[in-house]
Amino acid sequence: MLVHHLYSGGKDSSLAAWILTRLGYNVELVTVSFGLLDNWRFARETAERLGFEHRVLYLPKETLEKAAEMAIRDGHPNNAIQFIHEKALEALASLPEVERISDGTRRDDRVPLLDLPRARSLEDRFGVAYIRPLLGLGYKTIRELTERLFVVEIRESEELEKADYEVELRHLLREKGIDPLGIFPKSHYQSRVMGWKEGRNREIE
Amino acid sequence: MLVHHLYSGGKDSSLAAWILTRLGYNVELVTVSFGLLDNWRFARETAERLGFEHRVLYLPKETLEKAAEMAIRDGHPNNAIQFIHEKALEALASLPEVERISDGTRRDDRVPLLDLPRARSLEDRFGVAYIRPLLGLGYKTIRELTERLFVVEIRESEELEKADYEVELRHLLREKGIDPLGIFPKSHYQSRVMGWKEGRNREIE
Repeated sequence: MLVHHLYSGGKDSSLAAWILTRLGYNVELVTVSFGLLDNWRFARETAERLGFEHRVLYLPKETLEKAAEMAIRDGHPNNAIQFIHEKALEALASLPEVERISDGTRRDDRVPLLDLPRARSLEDRFGVAYIRPLLGLGYKTIRELTERLFVVEIRESEELEKADYEVELRHLLREKGIDPLGIFPKSHYQSRVMGWKEGRNREIE
Repeated sequence: MLVHHLYSGGKDSSLAAWILTRLGYNVELVTVSFGLLDNWRFARETAERLGFEHRVLYLPKETLEKAAEMAIRDGHPNNAIQFIHEKALEALASLPEVERISDGTRRDDRVPLLDLPRARSLEDRFGVAYIRPLLGLGYKTIRELTERLFVVEIRESEELEKADYEVELRHLLREKGIDPLGIFPKSHYQSRVMGWKEGRNREIE
């Protein structure tokens, strides 16, 4: 029973991947790229440290272009991020070998997050099961599980050493001569999952 | 890390309990009773077969009385079931030793189901974490996990050999001279979890 799991290398998508293995699924991690940057390598590196299979799924650059237009129009990235995530789920669900897709979206997230009609529509249109291991967990539970499982490095940084949609979106905005700092909320801290915290009992099986 | 999990003995709450153990939690199953019937024994029996600790939480009969009034007024049990479930969660969350509560509610359920503001309010008012292991799973995923894990007996029956809220609610309606068949949708089939399907690898740890 194989699940294709959208993966950024961050804490949430790493925790969701672990939960899938605990439910007995085989998990292949999938990181989306638009081919502008190779920041998917951060997700690959974390995937390898955690012992998961990993692949890159390339999405058309037009999707990122459209997302950039939305972010510029809104002066805020939320709709753009939501748009990319839906396109990523659809692209993954449409691969012929894919029967189950998953992501690390949370109950308390604003974006990206599919409401129930959208989640059901995704399943119906592509004939897949859409699994969201974190949807029923609040921040306390996610924090206690994450702290138990992962070595996380938190540091102040301007570079975005991560593989989420934001990085290529910021890059494209900069290419268009637009300062992403006017659109994205500022955050100087970033966290990276560096590996499992201890012994085998937490490792994937 | 102990979770108190609302438990009816049915497939959903059994699956949710199993997931909690797979996340590394110790799980105590809790079945609600209003003291009218001893149908909580069906949940106790299944809990024992699955190897879980189990306790009964008695709720005041006034809660069931109020639920019965709602069901009569509506001609439908949904609001009554939702009302009882919220009272059950609150009663469980208010016990001094309880830090984490859980249930088997699903994404595709209509009732009982707490929306996000209600779920957060429950956590905030009682200082607990509220975990819903099935919330991010669709019916396909729940079905495939349930089939893999549990021996389930399905049979045609008029008796309700289960420990969900409906049984005592129907009983109270009958005591009031009201035919529950005019309020509850008819279902002649009932399923009971009889045990784990096979070997230890699926058992709780």
